[in-house]
Amino acid sequence: MAKLLLGKDVAEALNARIASRAEALVKKGITPTLAIIRCGEDPSQLSYERGALKRAETTGVTVRTEVLPGETGKEELLAKIKELGTDPMVHGILLLRPLPSHLRPFEHEICNAVPPEKDVDCMTDLSNAGVYTGSPIGFPPCTPQAVMEFFDYYHIDLKGKDVVVIGRSLVVGRPVAMMAMARHATVTICHTRTADVPFHTRQADIIITSAGVLNSLTAGYVREGQIVIDVAINWDPAKKEGKGGIAGDAAFDEVAEKAEAVTPVPGGVGAVTTSVLMEHVVSAAERQNGELID
Amino acid sequence: MAKLLLGKDVAEALNARIASRAEALVKKGITPTLAIIRCGEDPSQLSYERGALKRAETTGVTVRTEVLPGETGKEELLAKIKELGTDPMVHGILLLRPLPSHLRPFEHEICNAVPPEKDVDCMTDLSNAGVYTGSPIGFPPCTPQAVMEFFDYYHIDLKGKDVVVIGRSLVVGRPVAMMAMARHATVTICHTRTADVPFHTRQADIIITSAGVLNSLTAGYVREGQIVIDVAINWDPAKKEGKGGIAGDAAFDEVAEKAEAVTPVPGGVGAVTTSVLMEHVVSAAERQNGELID
Repeated sequence: MAKLLLGKDVAEALNARIASRAEALVKKGITPTLAIIRCGEDPSQLSYERGALKRAETTGVTVRTEVLPGETGKEELLAKIKELGTDPMVHGILLLRPLPSHLRPFEHEICNAVPPEKDVDCMTDLSNAGVYTGSPIGFPPCTPQAVMEFFDYYHIDLKGKDVVVIGRSLVVGRPVAMMAMARHATVTICHTRTADVPFHTRQADIIITSAGVLNSLTAGYVREGQIVIDVAINWDPAKKEGKGGIAGDAAFDEVAEKAEAVTPVPGGVGAVTTSVLMEHVVSAAERQNGELID
Repeated sequence: MAKLLLGKDVAEALNARIASRAEALVKKGITPTLAIIRCGEDPSQLSYERGALKRAETTGVTVRTEVLPGETGKEELLAKIKELGTDPMVHGILLLRPLPSHLRPFEHEICNAVPPEKDVDCMTDLSNAGVYTGSPIGFPPCTPQAVMEFFDYYHIDLKGKDVVVIGRSLVVGRPVAMMAMARHATVTICHTRTADVPFHTRQADIIITSAGVLNSLTAGYVREGQIVIDVAINWDPAKKEGKGGIAGDAAFDEVAEKAEAVTPVPGGVGAVTTSVLMEHVVSAAERQNGELID
């Protein structure tokens, strides 16, 4: 039976480090501040916001919630982003998405209005360039960074390891591949057009799955000794005595029987992402006040 | 014996297509124009420039050579880039590198002064973001695009193929991996920290090597039926009866004996890169004059 890599443990250790950095900033008169922009009252965005507020409290980050009506126009939203972008008291900006449908045609322009140094969840082209080139322009998306936090917490050195990533999205697959490669892993990216995914995954030292397909990672995909990082969040109608619940890509029981270590869903990577968001806000505050805190 | 994939043939077909697009632009009063900025008289830059001028002539692209003294200051160079960046008669800007040593600490800032829509050789962060996200922001580097031209010319469909890339540089390895993945290949990126490169390459359908190490790709790295794209340009002192000459990563004779197809060096990918540069200039002119040519 695989060792469980628990998000709770990773997040606790990370939160403590963030809190101590936030405290050091506050002592110097800098209150690390995240502005969350929400257009409308989407329930899943409200739920995400509550989670972020709670995590902010634990870590000593201040959150300013900017709620705009659901019918906000493009120019109003751009003006709000510009206001927060130039406000020296705001260090990070998070725009909750999906945007209302009338704004979606302008999503690329709207996201890129965020200054990259305040782009704490990789909404801009320049943050993506930073992930790809391995430079500190902006910040990587929170989820792949959360995966790296697991590697750090559990002392999993990627150097020379074969890492197989399932999924090539810009929020998980591609950035996690780049970040694993920056740690000197040999990375293979599998996706929907890959001819034989289990052929690749069985050879891996570490599998990072973000397919978003319930029970897609079965026993046939894994071998003994592997580490499986399950990044997906799927709805499993069969869970909790048929009432349904969230689950990852892994057919958990059969994968956990073979693998050496595995992240559960829930309780795995997803439990760390808002901590990473707060870490980015604190990093942003540190970078933006470099001369004050050096 | 492997089929030779010849850069000359790829370039000829590409040149003809570019020339016809350039001609169509000229008929509409738009002269596709590349500005080459050179600081000083570095012999290898002069040689590259001569090659570009020759290729420009074949394809109907106009080149404006801007030669600045080797001791040019940062502000002067930035002013020149700004001048060309805002000049509607200039569609592409190529800054020859390496820059003189006193400018190298500012290289990132200088390169990023080029507007991405005129960045025909991927010097800017935004062009890199375009390569990574698969969006037409700026242009990819010429060498990996030249590799794609081989796939097009020889009708090599990457969908579902296993492609192994050796090298993770921003000029070849990383972009060629992203571009192959955009064509739905399953890509593995090997590099200096990869534990067992031949293990990976022997499994590939297509090997793209950019290690930059003479004779590093030996018979043990390949198997029958593979396509080998050799992107490296190394100096081989043993070539041409000991007088020396350029060579790729592949120990050519032994690889060509096994592989199904291989690009020679010289005469392979390198013979196509300046054509790609001209294609980018013509594309840039088309994009910048979209309303005029639609």
